[in-house]
Amino acid sequence: MKRLRRSVLAGALLASLVVVREPRADEAIVDVDRDRITQVSVINALLQGRFDGTVPFSSVLQDGDLGLGTVDRLDGELVVLEGKGYQIKSDGAIAEVGPDVTIPFAVVTPFDEDGRLPCPQTASLEELERWLDAAVGHPNNFVALRIDGEAAAVTLRSVHAQTKPYQPMNSRTDFQSVWKRERVRGTFVGIRSPAWARGITVPGYHWHFLAEDRRSGGHVLECHLRGGTVRFDVCGSWLVKLDESADFDRVNLSADLGDELDRIERVRGGKDER
Amino acid sequence: MKRLRRSVLAGALLASLVVVREPRADEAIVDVDRDRITQVSVINALLQGRFDGTVPFSSVLQDGDLGLGTVDRLDGELVVLEGKGYQIKSDGAIAEVGPDVTIPFAVVTPFDEDGRLPCPQTASLEELERWLDAAVGHPNNFVALRIDGEAAAVTLRSVHAQTKPYQPMNSRTDFQSVWKRERVRGTFVGIRSPAWARGITVPGYHWHFLAEDRRSGGHVLECHLRGGTVRFDVCGSWLVKLDESADFDRVNLSADLGDELDRIERVRGGKDER
Repeated sequence: MKRLRRSVLAGALLASLVVVREPRADEAIVDVDRDRITQVSVINALLQGRFDGTVPFSSVLQDGDLGLGTVDRLDGELVVLEGKGYQIKSDGAIAEVGPDVTIPFAVVTPFDEDGRLPCPQTASLEELERWLDAAVGHPNNFVALRIDGEAAAVTLRSVHAQTKPYQPMNSRTDFQSVWKRERVRGTFVGIRSPAWARGITVPGYHWHFLAEDRRSGGHVLECHLRGGTVRFDVCGSWLVKLDESADFDRVNLSADLGDELDRIERVRGGKDER
Repeated sequence: MKRLRRSVLAGALLASLVVVREPRADEAIVDVDRDRITQVSVINALLQGRFDGTVPFSSVLQDGDLGLGTVDRLDGELVVLEGKGYQIKSDGAIAEVGPDVTIPFAVVTPFDEDGRLPCPQTASLEELERWLDAAVGHPNNFVALRIDGEAAAVTLRSVHAQTKPYQPMNSRTDFQSVWKRERVRGTFVGIRSPAWARGITVPGYHWHFLAEDRRSGGHVLECHLRGGTVRFDVCGSWLVKLDESADFDRVNLSADLGDELDRIERVRGGKDER
């Protein structure tokens, strides 16, 4: 435990040295939008059962090559990595997302590395996130992260496709399957959103995982990370895409659903089904 | 009063008929960003004294030709109309804003008319806004408005330039000058932001006024409108531009400053100085 804490501190110290924004080769011609993080819809709409996709995945890819979200009808977790989309269904099956699949909620950015850090061993997701807070800084900004590493253990979940009429997510406890994997290598795709954006997006860290062989993954509920490499991208602007449908008009987006969100995104509820 | 209410209802009815999105001649080549509303910074940062401009006005104009805001050091109210910026100082003097003037907070959009309505006589700003809510709809979207009309009376204010070290706006009562004009023609530039965006931008309606002769204007605190033409633009996406400075990192943007904001943006505080 003591050794672990030292390595965390060393990592944080190192971070303060190596966090320099690398100039990109195409910096002169790139427009400001490469520094933008873009989200489809508002998290409070998803929580209240707006599971129908509103934009095609091809359009999501125009806004970024790294990120996370879900797909039409809440049919699984979405990971966007290196410009490809992976749909992880609740039975664990994984499929590449086609351009016409519609998306009800996603957050993506063109991933331009602002810093790279060796990642210490961390016994829990909470410990990892505390270390990242110190290492990355910028608490009022959005940050996209990828960690390529090895997990001693990771607890994953995915969500079941829903049927109409959709119910709010907090009205049911059986919306997800939860499972655990040990000794697995892969990529954690993370979005850290500032606390001030709560109600609109998921505040704090939100992680999806994709195994190295691209054959498994899911939304990360817990993780014991052995180590790896953290790369991050601090985003200078935040775009929220809305729709103008009567359905969207009717949702009460001002409700305080913070507790429901915590339960849905972070708690290892449900039973181990796989 | 009865006649007034009838005309309000007639206007709302008419609205439901004429609110059609006009196809634009350049629709095919225009990118999706013309439907975007863009803001510089976060209102909670401004309220807490971040008055230094962070982006040049030329950059603001790239994001829109209609909107409102303030300028470096809180030196007056900003109106953006037809691609020009007008700075209304607290002594009532008005100046065109040059491209290099820096902006700490602004909200602008490329104004593409989605609907046009005759505006009824309304005895107060509250009555006007109630009528607009019914006429425009889309409570979860951002809407840019311009009303070209005649006011029987309008109460305006502008803010005084601040000196460092800046103090939070709620720490002082003398931050503004308030004055009243009667029988004046001009343009009300309005941004309506959804309630769910509170803390990040000004929720509800936010109006700045520019007289027809472009020689006076200000932030609108109250208004008795004789009539005019409302044009509005429902915005499909919302971009928030942040900065990545250490100064920005330090602001507590999650504070609930709704009451302070109401007092600062809506209440006719201070004395009539002009």
